[in-house]
Amino acid sequence: MTEFDFIQKYLKNQQQDHQIVLGIGDDAAIVRPRSGFDLCFSSDMLLKNRHFFENITPENLAWKVLAVNISDMAAMGAEPKWVLLSAGLPELAEDWLHRFCNSFFGLLQRFGISLIGGDTTRGDLVFNVTIIGELPQGKALRRDAAKVGDDIWVSGKIGLAASALNCLLKQCDLSPEVFQQCETELLRPMPRVALGQAILDLAHAAQDISDGLAQDIGHILTASNVGAEIWAEQVPTLPELKESLSHEQWLKYTLAGGDDYELVFTAPENCREALQAASQQSDTPITRIGKITDSGRLKVVNSVSDDVEITLTSLGFDHFV
Amino acid sequence: MTEFDFIQKYLKNQQQDHQIVLGIGDDAAIVRPRSGFDLCFSSDMLLKNRHFFENITPENLAWKVLAVNISDMAAMGAEPKWVLLSAGLPELAEDWLHRFCNSFFGLLQRFGISLIGGDTTRGDLVFNVTIIGELPQGKALRRDAAKVGDDIWVSGKIGLAASALNCLLKQCDLSPEVFQQCETELLRPMPRVALGQAILDLAHAAQDISDGLAQDIGHILTASNVGAEIWAEQVPTLPELKESLSHEQWLKYTLAGGDDYELVFTAPENCREALQAASQQSDTPITRIGKITDSGRLKVVNSVSDDVEITLTSLGFDHFV
Repeated sequence: MTEFDFIQKYLKNQQQDHQIVLGIGDDAAIVRPRSGFDLCFSSDMLLKNRHFFENITPENLAWKVLAVNISDMAAMGAEPKWVLLSAGLPELAEDWLHRFCNSFFGLLQRFGISLIGGDTTRGDLVFNVTIIGELPQGKALRRDAAKVGDDIWVSGKIGLAASALNCLLKQCDLSPEVFQQCETELLRPMPRVALGQAILDLAHAAQDISDGLAQDIGHILTASNVGAEIWAEQVPTLPELKESLSHEQWLKYTLAGGDDYELVFTAPENCREALQAASQQSDTPITRIGKITDSGRLKVVNSVSDDVEITLTSLGFDHFV
Repeated sequence: MTEFDFIQKYLKNQQQDHQIVLGIGDDAAIVRPRSGFDLCFSSDMLLKNRHFFENITPENLAWKVLAVNISDMAAMGAEPKWVLLSAGLPELAEDWLHRFCNSFFGLLQRFGISLIGGDTTRGDLVFNVTIIGELPQGKALRRDAAKVGDDIWVSGKIGLAASALNCLLKQCDLSPEVFQQCETELLRPMPRVALGQAILDLAHAAQDISDGLAQDIGHILTASNVGAEIWAEQVPTLPELKESLSHEQWLKYTLAGGDDYELVFTAPENCREALQAASQQSDTPITRIGKITDSGRLKVVNSVSDDVEITLTSLGFDHFV
């Protein structure tokens, strides 16, 4: 199979999208922007043995490669619309590709996204997705918009992906049932696009939790020039995890684990009711875990009434530390 | 140096661009489209020992990674505006990065392009650039627009990059002077952006020559459902190359070599004068090398009056053949 057969066979599966003037197959794709909308751009590169294990199934790999990018659109409150996929593949094995593409196009379809371009080359399993989303002009959930007094919220449950990863790395023990629940979050994170759009008029700052809750909140604090207090016991978790892990492990995986792809966002106190409605409307659980303060730094305590500060040994994941 | 220091230090060097609502540093960048313009998107991935040799200088590497993407915008007649750079790097060596970034930002600046996002991770020298350009609505140099009777033109000189590559691979001998001229084209191709924009109202179909002249013309023929006749002796070359190489080698590197990043385009006969003016205006030499025919296939002959067909052993470069 040649590179061009490959593109023809698997990638020319355009969805109906009247904004696409020219799809895959030319030097570039052409898209017509809608008036009144800004465009959002994000890129993520995923490499073997760094972002995924070599033995990952093609279905899970395709999901992860795409989901982490869709999650960036969720974090902006944007509607994901188009992607470009670059793939370095060791060989074009028909069966492997078929399974990869089925999963990739399945997830695209679920979010109404079209593949408009990319590149294929021989390589040792490396992927890059660039995603483009639409936002009503002037609206966005930016990191620099948190205000002192804001509540801090997170979606879903935190720390499951890191628990699964650490179990795989023999750093902790989990029962098969608990491991399986956690592994699903590691392998098949579900981007919170509906929530991001539902809170667009309510939340101040937001971002997705990819590097670890504490570190990602840190980005908001730095960008917004504010501080925060987080109540560790309020951070939503899988109850069985607290029983399976030591408290130290649980704290580490939950606050500094990463790979959760949930949203963390800040919003004024008077939006609590409206946020609960947005949570229901988007079918996404949300939990209030802290406050934005004027301290200029992140303080983690066990609970609202507790004043003993928890010192984190690691703030999260950094590819170059 | 952490990933975030790296982004701060080297990448937050935004150019003044009032369309950028939000630059690097959030989950995604935000850009405001201009009314009356379509957007063009293209991505290219470059891997060590496939698209460049391991001993390439950081300056040449940065140039190539970016230039091949800018060339895709040139081939559409678009104005390149924004890029996202993903880089998998073995280590963040200060000196290497400094040299890479100087070259990368230098080329960005030359074309008035802004870096709006990307990703950095540990990897074995892998790069992906996504480039976004603007086009007046409804205009574009598409592959599917060639018409029977069109002239076929190319910019610059063809086959120099392939000659340098084959010399490096010990497939041919070139004098140091000739090799140096050819190597410049291999390492520092100059995207034909000004020409692409200058011929936007004149040319029918266009594309850049990345996979080899014959194969790239083949894409236009397939997309446009036409044929072509190419006059090999008319294809612009470095005269010294014809003396250094066997005729067979010269034909192969010129017609099937690839990596030239010149433009090949078709235009009606009555545009010849206007095209020469566009060539002058954009300071880019162009040469007429053939005709679009109704034969449905590509026929290569030595010259206009010659009817003996040249059989090409290879049509160009395909990553999966």
